[in-house]
Amino acid sequence: MTTTRVLSVSQAKAPFEKTTIERRELRPHDVLINIQYSGICHSDIHSAFDEWGGGIFPMVPGHEIAGVVAEVGAEVTKFAVGDRVGVGCFVDSCGACEYCLSGEEQYCSKGVVSTYNSLDYDGNPTYGGYSQKIVVTEGFVVRIPDKLNLDVAASLLCAGITTYSPLKHWNVGPGKKVAIVGMGGLGHLAVQYAHALGAEVTVLSQSMKKKNEAQEFGADHYFATSDTATFSQLASRFDVILNTVSANLDVDAYLSMLRIDGTLVNVGAPAEPDKYQVFSLIMGRRSIAGSLVGGIRETQEMLDFSAEHGIAPKIEVIRADQVDEAYQRVLRSDVRYRFVIDVSSL
Amino acid sequence: MTTTRVLSVSQAKAPFEKTTIERRELRPHDVLINIQYSGICHSDIHSAFDEWGGGIFPMVPGHEIAGVVAEVGAEVTKFAVGDRVGVGCFVDSCGACEYCLSGEEQYCSKGVVSTYNSLDYDGNPTYGGYSQKIVVTEGFVVRIPDKLNLDVAASLLCAGITTYSPLKHWNVGPGKKVAIVGMGGLGHLAVQYAHALGAEVTVLSQSMKKKNEAQEFGADHYFATSDTATFSQLASRFDVILNTVSANLDVDAYLSMLRIDGTLVNVGAPAEPDKYQVFSLIMGRRSIAGSLVGGIRETQEMLDFSAEHGIAPKIEVIRADQVDEAYQRVLRSDVRYRFVIDVSSL
Repeated sequence: MTTTRVLSVSQAKAPFEKTTIERRELRPHDVLINIQYSGICHSDIHSAFDEWGGGIFPMVPGHEIAGVVAEVGAEVTKFAVGDRVGVGCFVDSCGACEYCLSGEEQYCSKGVVSTYNSLDYDGNPTYGGYSQKIVVTEGFVVRIPDKLNLDVAASLLCAGITTYSPLKHWNVGPGKKVAIVGMGGLGHLAVQYAHALGAEVTVLSQSMKKKNEAQEFGADHYFATSDTATFSQLASRFDVILNTVSANLDVDAYLSMLRIDGTLVNVGAPAEPDKYQVFSLIMGRRSIAGSLVGGIRETQEMLDFSAEHGIAPKIEVIRADQVDEAYQRVLRSDVRYRFVIDVSSL
Repeated sequence: MTTTRVLSVSQAKAPFEKTTIERRELRPHDVLINIQYSGICHSDIHSAFDEWGGGIFPMVPGHEIAGVVAEVGAEVTKFAVGDRVGVGCFVDSCGACEYCLSGEEQYCSKGVVSTYNSLDYDGNPTYGGYSQKIVVTEGFVVRIPDKLNLDVAASLLCAGITTYSPLKHWNVGPGKKVAIVGMGGLGHLAVQYAHALGAEVTVLSQSMKKKNEAQEFGADHYFATSDTATFSQLASRFDVILNTVSANLDVDAYLSMLRIDGTLVNVGAPAEPDKYQVFSLIMGRRSIAGSLVGGIRETQEMLDFSAEHGIAPKIEVIRADQVDEAYQRVLRSDVRYRFVIDVSSL
């Protein structure tokens, strides 16, 4: 067992405390990682506040993990000590179902083991990246390209793959018109990916405040959704609308901006149900869909693509004692665009 | 001009009256059809009762039209006098937009001209198939294969294409599991098409009453949605669920029966919005979609496929003076499965 320092919450909405936990003895295929940076994701807040229910406490959040390999199990072939590596939203899956076999472990039929707030297949709770060390089986560890700094790479491991995967799945590329709804932690990466994939990119944000930044990220057009004229002006325009916002939308208004066969893809989920008129779908053979992160193979592809195209999140690096405050700032959208914890401060 | 006998309603919810209208002089590409049978579609009732608003009265409904060519314009090449032909939901489109050019006229950018309760591009109201004659440009007329009786062919021109097109679009075929929700006028055809396309077909009906008939139409399985155990028993099972019911569904419950990447396709539209939890989509990359009839080329393909595979609606042929009563029977689901008016009785 390896003792490691962590940031932990003892119960829902409790403040973070510095404490220690034990990481398991290395199994033959395990990798021990010295974590350097751990990103903060909005879902960490939902989990630490137990807003989705079923929280396992004490909880150590964090599923955007970047660090360096410190030790490897006897049969590890993929990594060596000193390698720069990352871990994202999950740390195990059954490995045998059709989804695992096709590299989409996030949809594992047995149920994927999440990086924290989950039970592994032995029934032990998992603890995430707000921690100095983590032990993960090598199949769920990805390599961070030399061109990517570890602090920005951390944020990519959830925010990056959550936006990259649906853009690829719905064939966003040259000749396609895509809208990104919301330009926060997810949205500002989605704009960069959609642009690098060759699509014509429109940002739909509440106000005009982020227009200049959107253009720096590669947006071709920018419209405010607070202006109702936006919806008529953009009628029947987009092949894909990627919604990165977790609030309820006027779904019919967004569907009206889709071309025939267009898709509104959601990666953020509001607590309350969304509503739509079935006619909005029928009249243009349109779809409403959702997408959940991405598999390990695609996560590696996303990191390599990011390095190749110079894509990186804009981040604010914080100390371990600033996490409670950072949560409050995320809740009031006071972050451009993603917090990353410097784990050396833990 | 050609005078023709019709069944017409003078205003919303008025009873049908036998009267006459004028059909236009044949233009070079027009075909004059002696109508023999005209199907009754639920949307005829919505229109004649003006439930969707904007009704153009007096109205002659009917967009499931089967008959014989009586006369052709000077430049008609596709049809000759005596040919057995049909007309479906629309009678013109711009012919120049990308959707018309790809044979999906129903999504015409200029707006398709519906067979009735619409204005043609000259601004004249269109009158439908509850009529002894109709004049239609040859591009919107399809050929009825010899193997299909004209009475059953009539119903296929809306109910058939409405179900055939989405099954084809969403790749229903061998190895795929498809559920058909509702076994009425649309559903009983959908079961036959899905079976003929080689899929494993499950009918989801409110009660067990239609089980034997469903099996005769080719269903492999049959479940009652009034039994809540149905939803857990069929969890994550279907590639496609085709919803032919116009009532509001518990969308999340239906989504839970879809596999990863599965699609719930709606061809019936309730007046009130549907609701769904975005999580139901995200956790399985599932989609909710809609589909609107089909283009002319695909309508011809559907007729040929129906003839080849012996697919036909179960119909009840009625006289012109029974249409008001038939509407009431449709409203109380007292029809197995589709009414067709014998136009010779007009």
